[in-house]
Amino acid sequence: MISFAIIGHLARTDGEFSLNDLPGSGGRMDVLCRCVNASLFLSHDLRRDTECYLILCGESAAPKTIRFSGNTIRSLSPDERSAGALVKKALNLPVGSEFRDAAPGVSVRKGGLERLIADDSFAVLDEKGSDIRSAESLPTSFILSDHLNFTGDEESLIQQYPRYSVGPSCLHADHTITVLNNELDRRRCGWQ
Amino acid sequence: MISFAIIGHLARTDGEFSLNDLPGSGGRMDVLCRCVNASLFLSHDLRRDTECYLILCGESAAPKTIRFSGNTIRSLSPDERSAGALVKKALNLPVGSEFRDAAPGVSVRKGGLERLIADDSFAVLDEKGSDIRSAESLPTSFILSDHLNFTGDEESLIQQYPRYSVGPSCLHADHTITVLNNELDRRRCGWQ
Repeated sequence: MISFAIIGHLARTDGEFSLNDLPGSGGRMDVLCRCVNASLFLSHDLRRDTECYLILCGESAAPKTIRFSGNTIRSLSPDERSAGALVKKALNLPVGSEFRDAAPGVSVRKGGLERLIADDSFAVLDEKGSDIRSAESLPTSFILSDHLNFTGDEESLIQQYPRYSVGPSCLHADHTITVLNNELDRRRCGWQ
Repeated sequence: MISFAIIGHLARTDGEFSLNDLPGSGGRMDVLCRCVNASLFLSHDLRRDTECYLILCGESAAPKTIRFSGNTIRSLSPDERSAGALVKKALNLPVGSEFRDAAPGVSVRKGGLERLIADDSFAVLDEKGSDIRSAESLPTSFILSDHLNFTGDEESLIQQYPRYSVGPSCLHADHTITVLNNELDRRRCGWQ
């Protein structure tokens, strides 16, 4: 299983945003929606072995985590509004500390980064890391930040994790996921 | 200069689509908007040396071509609606056979693939091509199709062009552009 976890520092946690204004009213929810797309979509297919976690840290019920599971998701299209509508549906549910289903392949719980990294071992994708192409083997679970840098508290939580970079240019989070998925595809299929 | 040209087989050519329904009313205009994003955006910057051509072939005034120029574009945000709004603005202008400005860095003209390839030498990005990583040098102008295959007429026009593939999985057009841009970044910066 491949996992991507993206921290949305300003992303709303209460569903009180408009699908017509994901960047503004959603706290850059557009970034997170594109990360769902980059994590899960192939052309005319889905990456069934991949999960995408959105760690939402904005107003007014932070933190919450939404999980998109490639093996069970339905009703997801590649456009931003499609993922945004599923996020909104999940955020409108009352939630506790365990994942509850909001739609097929979409679940939500209270809790953020600290909770997530207690369950799995992650690597960090950012521009200060070592080149993914030079790595003898790559991990399968990755944390990224949205358009903002990791906070000091987040850095403290992830400081012991290995860091990888996908290239010499500083990319958007969704582009970073796309390049990483390409590298994993190549390694799996012997395209080096 | 790097150029990406994406054929939108069903993409509307008259501006009569809703920004709230880019996939349906726009004839999968969402695909093309994501290609603009993948072509031009870096994190907190733009790829100033890159142009993105959208070749629109849908109802009701096909074909038209819209050019997004990284060195002069303004008022473009990464979300799909932002590129969609600029497309709509361009399509609402009366146009002739030469590019006319619709907004800073955005211009539009009548004509499609045949006209475009008369001006430049292109390569084709699709899954049947040779691996971009194996190429000693790469071209700088690329044609891609949207979610549909090239038509027979299009294949006739591009059959003599070199073909490249970005990896073993069949990807969306915007993801393909992202991976290709990463390969070009690496070659430019000596990250091999």
